[in-house]
Amino acid sequence: MVNTTGKMFQITTFGSSHGRALGAVIDGCPANLELSEKDIQIELNKRRPGTSKLTSQRNEKDHVEILSGIFGGRTDGTPIACIVLNNNQHSKDYSNLKNVPRPGHGDYCWYSKYGNYDYNGGGRGSGRTTIGQVIGGAIAKKLLKTHGIEIISHVTQIGNVVAEDIPLNEIPKKVKLNPVRCADNDAAKRMERLILECKDSGDSVGGIVETIATGVPTGLGEPVYGKLDGDLAKALMEINAVKGVEIGAGFEVASNFGSENNDEFILNPMIEKKDINLKRDVITTTNNCGGILGGMSDGMPIISRIAIKPTPSISKLQNTVNLKEKENNPVLIEGRHDPCICPRVTIVSESATAIVLADHMIRSGFINPCNIKKTSF
Amino acid sequence: MVNTTGKMFQITTFGSSHGRALGAVIDGCPANLELSEKDIQIELNKRRPGTSKLTSQRNEKDHVEILSGIFGGRTDGTPIACIVLNNNQHSKDYSNLKNVPRPGHGDYCWYSKYGNYDYNGGGRGSGRTTIGQVIGGAIAKKLLKTHGIEIISHVTQIGNVVAEDIPLNEIPKKVKLNPVRCADNDAAKRMERLILECKDSGDSVGGIVETIATGVPTGLGEPVYGKLDGDLAKALMEINAVKGVEIGAGFEVASNFGSENNDEFILNPMIEKKDINLKRDVITTTNNCGGILGGMSDGMPIISRIAIKPTPSISKLQNTVNLKEKENNPVLIEGRHDPCICPRVTIVSESATAIVLADHMIRSGFINPCNIKKTSF
Amino acid sequence: MVNTTGKMFQITTFGSSHGRALGAVIDGCPANLELSEKDIQIELNKRRPGTSKLTSQRNEKDHVEILSGIFGGRTDGTPIACIVLNNNQHSKDYSNLKNVPRPGHGDYCWYSKYGNYDYNGGGRGSGRTTIGQVIGGAIAKKLLKTHGIEIISHVTQIGNVVAEDIPLNEIPKKVKLNPVRCADNDAAKRMERLILECKDSGDSVGGIVETIATGVPTGLGEPVYGKLDGDLAKALMEINAVKGVEIGAGFEVASNFGSENNDEFILNPMIEKKDINLKRDVITTTNNCGGILGGMSDGMPIISRIAIKPTPSISKLQNTVNLKEKENNPVLIEGRHDPCICPRVTIVSESATAIVLADHMIRSGFINPCNIKKTSF
Amino acid sequence: MVNTTGKMFQITTFGSSHGRALGAVIDGCPANLELSEKDIQIELNKRRPGTSKLTSQRNEKDHVEILSGIFGGRTDGTPIACIVLNNNQHSKDYSNLKNVPRPGHGDYCWYSKYGNYDYNGGGRGSGRTTIGQVIGGAIAKKLLKTHGIEIISHVTQIGNVVAEDIPLNEIPKKVKLNPVRCADNDAAKRMERLILECKDSGDSVGGIVETIATGVPTGLGEPVYGKLDGDLAKALMEINAVKGVEIGAGFEVASNFGSENNDEFILNPMIEKKDINLKRDVITTTNNCGGILGGMSDGMPIISRIAIKPTPSISKLQNTVNLKEKENNPVLIEGRHDPCICPRVTIVSESATAIVLADHMIRSGFINPCNIKKTSF
Repeated sequence: MVNTTGKMFQITTFGSSHGRALGAVIDGCPANLELSEKDIQIELNKRRPGTSKLTSQRNEKDHVEILSGIFGGRTDGTPIACIVLNNNQHSKDYSNLKNVPRPGHGDYCWYSKYGNYDYNGGGRGSGRTTIGQVIGGAIAKKLLKTHGIEIISHVTQIGNVVAEDIPLNEIPKKVKLNPVRCADNDAAKRMERLILECKDSGDSVGGIVETIATGVPTGLGEPVYGKLDGDLAKALMEINAVKGVEIGAGFEVASNFGSENNDEFILNPMIEKKDINLKRDVITTTNNCGGILGGMSDGMPIISRIAIKPTPSISKLQNTVNLKEKENNPVLIEGRHDPCICPRVTIVSESATAIVLADHMIRSGFINPCNIKKTSF
Repeated sequence: MVNTTGKMFQITTFGSSHGRALGAVIDGCPANLELSEKDIQIELNKRRPGTSKLTSQRNEKDHVEILSGIFGGRTDGTPIACIVLNNNQHSKDYSNLKNVPRPGHGDYCWYSKYGNYDYNGGGRGSGRTTIGQVIGGAIAKKLLKTHGIEIISHVTQIGNVVAEDIPLNEIPKKVKLNPVRCADNDAAKRMERLILECKDSGDSVGGIVETIATGVPTGLGEPVYGKLDGDLAKALMEINAVKGVEIGAGFEVASNFGSENNDEFILNPMIEKKDINLKRDVITTTNNCGGILGGMSDGMPIISRIAIKPTPSISKLQNTVNLKEKENNPVLIEGRHDPCICPRVTIVSESATAIVLADHMIRSGFINPCNIKKTSF
Repeated sequence: MVNTTGKMFQITTFGSSHGRALGAVIDGCPANLELSEKDIQIELNKRRPGTSKLTSQRNEKDHVEILSGIFGGRTDGTPIACIVLNNNQHSKDYSNLKNVPRPGHGDYCWYSKYGNYDYNGGGRGSGRTTIGQVIGGAIAKKLLKTHGIEIISHVTQIGNVVAEDIPLNEIPKKVKLNPVRCADNDAAKRMERLILECKDSGDSVGGIVETIATGVPTGLGEPVYGKLDGDLAKALMEINAVKGVEIGAGFEVASNFGSENNDEFILNPMIEKKDINLKRDVITTTNNCGGILGGMSDGMPIISRIAIKPTPSISKLQNTVNLKEKENNPVLIEGRHDPCICPRVTIVSESATAIVLADHMIRSGFINPCNIKKTSF
Repeated sequence: MVNTTGKMFQITTFGSSHGRALGAVIDGCPANLELSEKDIQIELNKRRPGTSKLTSQRNEKDHVEILSGIFGGRTDGTPIACIVLNNNQHSKDYSNLKNVPRPGHGDYCWYSKYGNYDYNGGGRGSGRTTIGQVIGGAIAKKLLKTHGIEIISHVTQIGNVVAEDIPLNEIPKKVKLNPVRCADNDAAKRMERLILECKDSGDSVGGIVETIATGVPTGLGEPVYGKLDGDLAKALMEINAVKGVEIGAGFEVASNFGSENNDEFILNPMIEKKDINLKRDVITTTNNCGGILGGMSDGMPIISRIAIKPTPSISKLQNTVNLKEKENNPVLIEGRHDPCICPRVTIVSESATAIVLADHMIRSGFINPCNIKKTSF
């Protein structure tokens, strides 16, 4: 098992859907960052279900407790351990799933790999394990903010409903105006309708989440096996239900010519103006590369998109097998599931992105690894 | 810099386009695998340019030499160091690029990150660095083959030319029939035409490469931060020019319903028959998940696709800046470039996939980490 | 900060002397190992103070709680998070130490490295952080025991009192007969007297702890940077207060000739008899190498010794400086300290040894990394 | 196999005594460090045998070649690959050792772990593999020197001949005055005599090497599993033939009282004077801790000592077994061996120490990880 990620800013997560607690240990956060449970709770609240009719009606409080790593309201350079107690588990929902893997879930793989598999609500494969990532992301975001880096995720597609392009600087406030977390409010309404239809019919639907990081300096990422896009791809693909990751123009580059796709460099015309997105004297006129060239950030906004599959837990009869009895065994999954997890995934992809960027900000010498109060390079 | 990847089967690469040599050190290959320079040379020959009119006319021999790790024709468990001497560099091609970053290349990022930047042909950012990956891939493939795992990559799209779906078992032989390495020979002809048009007009074009691994046992991959798709996404995104990675149905999942997308399990009807793709008694009727569920292989073929941007080196005047003089400075890049690197990328994506799978085969206990002759679990 | 160690069997610890909790996350323990809180509590009880008049009179319950990773009384392959709440802290003891580093402690280094330093009882530098190691050690020991490996540590020297050599197989039971955890009961009495004298005079005293692992198979350890003795040296040196590590004959080898020091191989005369120490058909007639040759175990008992400095917290006036006022500032440290930590270190060195061996048993293919029920190599 | 070490400054070594070449890849050396083959050759020359009558009469040129990572005479931030071709191997010396493990060597462990074992001159277990470490050490030293850190190793004991204490600042020049590399020239003569006696009698002898690093800033090392002494202990124990490591007072602390052993802090009386050893306003009056407290450097000289066993290759008949025939099989080892490797180990322990310190200088933010010309924290 590999439940630790990162090189200098490192996160270890633990816990499953039905154990005593979930949590994370964040190691390598420099000392002297102001940090409280509230900073983390705000982020966890964006993730938890039960906040709108679009999500699962499970009422998970997900109250975070910091166990270590804070002294006098600031980080002290030692590992920050955080836990969230599980308190709303209905284990009886799942007892019929013993030896019967749910289609679209990892149950079958867990069963075959580890033998002793927690079939209650997905165990460690559950979406609840993203709580650990959100905890780490909350701390990473706070650290990045001290260096002017901001991260926002928004839903750009649900099923066949595709959002219009919204100017980058309007996204952060527009995304808050609807429960779908889509910056195009018209599309958001149609998405909402589609999700509710799925809910009614016991089905689920997929979508796309885009994440934008602004204020990132030039030169994050390390060729060859520490490329920024490589690390982002890994972090994003590791989010439950993600089946695709693209950077900048992404899969569209396949049908483009070089003369269309190359982003040309010019001297920054806005260099005199204060603009959080433009920290430097050279910019590109387009951003097909999504802020990453040769595996390194080029100072433009870093843009990624992830494809999220429809929630595999649906309330329809599905074919599967009983692994013990070696017989086909159709199954009807009960429980309270999200018809579409994309809105809730936004906070997880922000977190995953933040964790990668925080790690690289330290690795590249932009943030002092020991103490943020020490002058950076 | 991070030039090492893998946990148990580990590869370190070094070298750039214009230094004395490029190479790789493969560490963690178990002892007693038969291995010769020929095994590696065959793979390198698939990567090297000058083999068809579709590729750069640079004539790079790319002759590999094994320096260590072999005893009596078999691996001995110690690191296998391999080098390829550089011998066809035209450094004069590039002297005008000092301080003048090429659009679409990492030059600007290298300049700003490391200061002392090799502007000759991309230095460590050059596609030549994939030589290291192909060396590692050749060894990984040989190791995987001892356990029945085969990997094949093929081109499925070049520009707006999209190949038809070809049955999985026909791909390996069909891909050899044309220089595009596309299994659909009709599409291949149109792709070839498009690439030659780009060559004539000094432009370049992107595409998509699909990779299929068959014979993979159930249970490779480790939740949460060692997911098989996470590691594949990283390895594939780290290939030069890749801007997107998808697994199975990939971005199509966004517009699907759960009832369409879930792969149902059934008892394997072919369990009596000998089929390299089916090692187990349970299979899925569809493979939208691309052989990976919950971050672990489910025993079905593992399918990934990568989006490859058009070669950024084009023979057209492009806008850029002189970083030292701080002035706009249009540039015309000379040299012998590939109008489309997709055909040559196929061998690199096979290699990247093989390296990840070899690592996970050892990590999951399917291959003895010390000696392949020892009984595996 | 690096608070994670191990490659396949990995432990992350967190917490300090005066925070809310201390704990550890153990990642990579294969599934299906029977494990309960009791298994861990037994080991923690050996570590905690207040159990004899030789130790600090702090009464720390150190009650462990397992938060995750167990399903149906057995490990399930997911990370095992354990916490111990802090509940007997007297923070007022330490308020005079703000900006005034204690001689022999890491305070000065913490202050200068992290700025925001927890001066209460040593913070993360406190001996209480070994709780995390003991938790990890308890799980590692349980895992090793399934493969016949046993580990015992005993005190061989306190100040100038040196224990006689005791036959290896008598040590486990003799070490329990006295609170010093010395297998030579006569020496133990003198050691006990010396420790109590130190307690009375407000001084402290150092010592040596030897650790013996039996039943270890041949071939653990990986040349060159994963040598078993290298990893043991690191793990043992990282225990608080350790200033020296030796394997086998250790520093005595310096004055020996090769003809004396080499351990000769013979066919094992006891091969017919059941002996936990002898798993193989070849043994050495002596064990100057301490069971490790060329960085790999040779099947003989693995023997290490560590030098432990006298507890730096003593009740005598000592010279130090006030770092803020930049003036010399003699200090008298209050609190309830151990006059000699060697007896309590025995359990920590057992733990550190067990963690290293568990990691290497998996890395070398002796224990299946996913599920202990799967046949090992 | 683990042949890579370090976190930010990373070294991978490869090659064995009788393959085509040995070498190292150094990854993570920041750009803009002046570096030439000569810098490395100077250090390799200190390691190679045949330079005095005290060493093996093998005449190994050990000529280093840099393959990558240098641009315009300076590092460019990419991996620095170096090789040394093997050219003086007498493989016939060793053919009788097939299946017959030499006492005191790792042969038996290699045989049992990897099966396919190079019995020629120790293969990867040979002392020749330290060539890789010396290459890495040469680069690390050059990097450290830019920050005022100097490292010197000297022999303090050979057999029963123990050197007198020599003032720290005299050691670097005195150690060059004799082939034993002992700073006490009187003792050096007796050591030389003892070594030559061993040579004549076909025996070998052990010794102790001390290493001193001066100019190290306060705060290198990361609790808990990245302690500076932990990493040093590992790096030093991994040197062939080392059986013990101690820091500062080392094993003497066992017999000391806390009131003797604690190093008291005072304001630095020499703060006005220029002294390479004292970079800070606070010093300790003694240095029993060897410059490391709580796992972190305290700014005083870092002092370690390693116990080196007598060369196991001796020209005397020794008992061993034929592993294939399963019979006892006395063996007489031929070849040209060092009667005492301590003088040559000095350069290896300097290298190992330099590699650890370079890594921690970057990890702790004292050296910019990308470019040494960028202002450090």
